[in-house]
Amino acid sequence: MAQVNENHLKLSGNYLFAEIGKRVTAFKTANPKADVIRLGIGDVTKPLPKVSIEAMHKAVDEMGCEATFRGYPEYEGYDFLIERIIEVDYNKRGITIDKDEVFVSDGAKSDTANIQELFGLDNVIAVTDPVYPVYVDTNVMAGKTGSYGADGKWSNVLYIPCTAENKFIPELPKRKADLIYLCFPNNPTGTTLTKGELKKWVDYAQQNKSIILFDSAYEAYISEEDIPHSIYEIEGAREVAIEFRSFSKTAGFTGTRCAYTIIPKELAAYSASGEANNLNRMWYRRQATKFNGVSYIVQRGAEAVFSQEGQKQVEETIGYYMSNAKIIREGLLSLGIQVFGGVNAPYIWIKIPKNLDSWGFFDKLLYEANVVGTPGVGFGPSGQGYFRLTAFGSRESTQEAVERFKTHLKQ
Amino acid sequence: MAQVNENHLKLSGNYLFAEIGKRVTAFKTANPKADVIRLGIGDVTKPLPKVSIEAMHKAVDEMGCEATFRGYPEYEGYDFLIERIIEVDYNKRGITIDKDEVFVSDGAKSDTANIQELFGLDNVIAVTDPVYPVYVDTNVMAGKTGSYGADGKWSNVLYIPCTAENKFIPELPKRKADLIYLCFPNNPTGTTLTKGELKKWVDYAQQNKSIILFDSAYEAYISEEDIPHSIYEIEGAREVAIEFRSFSKTAGFTGTRCAYTIIPKELAAYSASGEANNLNRMWYRRQATKFNGVSYIVQRGAEAVFSQEGQKQVEETIGYYMSNAKIIREGLLSLGIQVFGGVNAPYIWIKIPKNLDSWGFFDKLLYEANVVGTPGVGFGPSGQGYFRLTAFGSRESTQEAVERFKTHLKQ
Repeated sequence: MAQVNENHLKLSGNYLFAEIGKRVTAFKTANPKADVIRLGIGDVTKPLPKVSIEAMHKAVDEMGCEATFRGYPEYEGYDFLIERIIEVDYNKRGITIDKDEVFVSDGAKSDTANIQELFGLDNVIAVTDPVYPVYVDTNVMAGKTGSYGADGKWSNVLYIPCTAENKFIPELPKRKADLIYLCFPNNPTGTTLTKGELKKWVDYAQQNKSIILFDSAYEAYISEEDIPHSIYEIEGAREVAIEFRSFSKTAGFTGTRCAYTIIPKELAAYSASGEANNLNRMWYRRQATKFNGVSYIVQRGAEAVFSQEGQKQVEETIGYYMSNAKIIREGLLSLGIQVFGGVNAPYIWIKIPKNLDSWGFFDKLLYEANVVGTPGVGFGPSGQGYFRLTAFGSRESTQEAVERFKTHLKQ
Repeated sequence: MAQVNENHLKLSGNYLFAEIGKRVTAFKTANPKADVIRLGIGDVTKPLPKVSIEAMHKAVDEMGCEATFRGYPEYEGYDFLIERIIEVDYNKRGITIDKDEVFVSDGAKSDTANIQELFGLDNVIAVTDPVYPVYVDTNVMAGKTGSYGADGKWSNVLYIPCTAENKFIPELPKRKADLIYLCFPNNPTGTTLTKGELKKWVDYAQQNKSIILFDSAYEAYISEEDIPHSIYEIEGAREVAIEFRSFSKTAGFTGTRCAYTIIPKELAAYSASGEANNLNRMWYRRQATKFNGVSYIVQRGAEAVFSQEGQKQVEETIGYYMSNAKIIREGLLSLGIQVFGGVNAPYIWIKIPKNLDSWGFFDKLLYEANVVGTPGVGFGPSGQGYFRLTAFGSRESTQEAVERFKTHLKQ
């Protein structure tokens, strides 16, 4: 008799964005003429950079010709892409990364989801709260999180609150944490850590032989000084941190699918016998066994992003989104609403006024202003009373949304 | 302190094809002028169908234009592709599949690797032997296989020998098996099961509430009657079987990356309390949490394969490879060597003459004939004394390889 993985059954049936979809559909069915503006899911809307389009046309032609056809890609990505990643994303910031420390994949979601496979069941997992649901859910599926409590927390997960009270700066855990998920610029709060603040985490990880799983999918949105784009800008990070990067938000690749993960060769996880195991080689073995690499065509599209022209095109699109972010921020601030993020990230995090909870505010905004956002509590218990809006809409719909806020959210 | 997943450490460091690569490199270094013919790794060499090239050009253009740009794909694949899969691959064979039973992915390797996540640690896993290493290795990583013995077997895995002695027809296991991996047409042996033989396995699974994980990545190579293309041609299979399909070998997508998996809604795995859990919904939750879908461009390329013109182009390419298979088969048979497969599959499975073992024959072929194949023992203990050649080379190199066999393998 086939026996189920009972850990899977512990997960709630509805993924956050599925629940949102359900409520929006119900509203649209009841109000078919309503003009709904979607600032909920963090999906981009601007087309791919022209350089990527050109590069992918060329790659498609190569796949149609025997002399230039490509079969199985390298599990870890093609050299032509890896070399550009290292040069533009790291060397230019004074960071040295070896070629065999870069692993190209189909998405930062896949990598942040799968990375926990390298670690045993008894690690204490720490997450900032609120947090991208994938970090926690994938550990639940693997049986690493204990039981789910009435407080909305898993018993074996350390939740580190990031709220307006602590200016969204996570405190070092008092209990020992073995695996620490950090995402900065942060999804969902849009807030950041300075180099000094991130250094404390690197030091903590060194002292405790912990591993930091650093998601920097939004680094391209950083506009201020002293905010690290890579955790490897921090001294000692090579010994304790894995970094996840994506082309999704940087270059509009959400529907094209490409990302990469850096695993320095210094990184180790320990056996019960105390032996240090090289995580870089373990991840290679994992990828070689469970993954067959990223489409050649897509990797050529990603490579083009690193050209001078590509970098310029990416900057323009990000500038467009960040102007949206400014419009949302300033519109809400003018209504006396507390707003965070939106300066170094495409997310605006709202402290909900008038004591509504996250889902109450979701419904109010949907039914009164016909605007869809994401309830903060969907990202964890400390997200209760908050709400996320994204800057990925068109200029017109963003401006229209702000006008509606002015009508419906007056204090 | 970050603790390692000790199950990972049980795996041998070298994946089969990495070991082959190492030996070939050593040979080439010592013999830089040798003209090595590679019939080892099962990678295609013919370009993509023209229809896919055209479709992908169009899709690339759509991604470059705001009005037609696509963001995050559906986790389970676009309807336009799913509908064609159902129509051409199933309905035309009289099989009914619902849209929410099809899951498009980046590869059958990923899916056959990840599917074990849905099942608990105490399932008895059965594999035919020899077997595609991914099935076993991924269960090792998850801690489901017990310990590795001197006989080259894992203690919790049931190995079902498929050798010349039993005509490569696996016997039903005497011990109860909960999860059964079957791949037909088979990699590596190139052999098949008839409908009647496969029916026995479906009946067994029904009686034992087992799940059959049916890999039919090579179905497009079937040339004979009475060989099932899909396990769902067998009565009762919807209640017991998951089927894996790929565009890799059918349409040359090894470097483009697209596949799909069918999980009928009848399928269940059981909780300790005896409750049946719907595997279709569990897989959806798994994919939604750990995967973000396949590139829009690639899915359009896959869709085109199902057009009338696409089917014709695919047939031509497969015909080309199968002519290679025939050349290899007949060449070896004329030398008095026992040969299997190569009729309904692109793999030719050789019984090694003169009492050499698999690696011994590998080295002999490499050093004497300068031809690379794959040692049978790399696929499991029952592969010892066998050797795999593939039909994916060019006509010219295939003919040249056979000429060299005639020189070096005379009985």
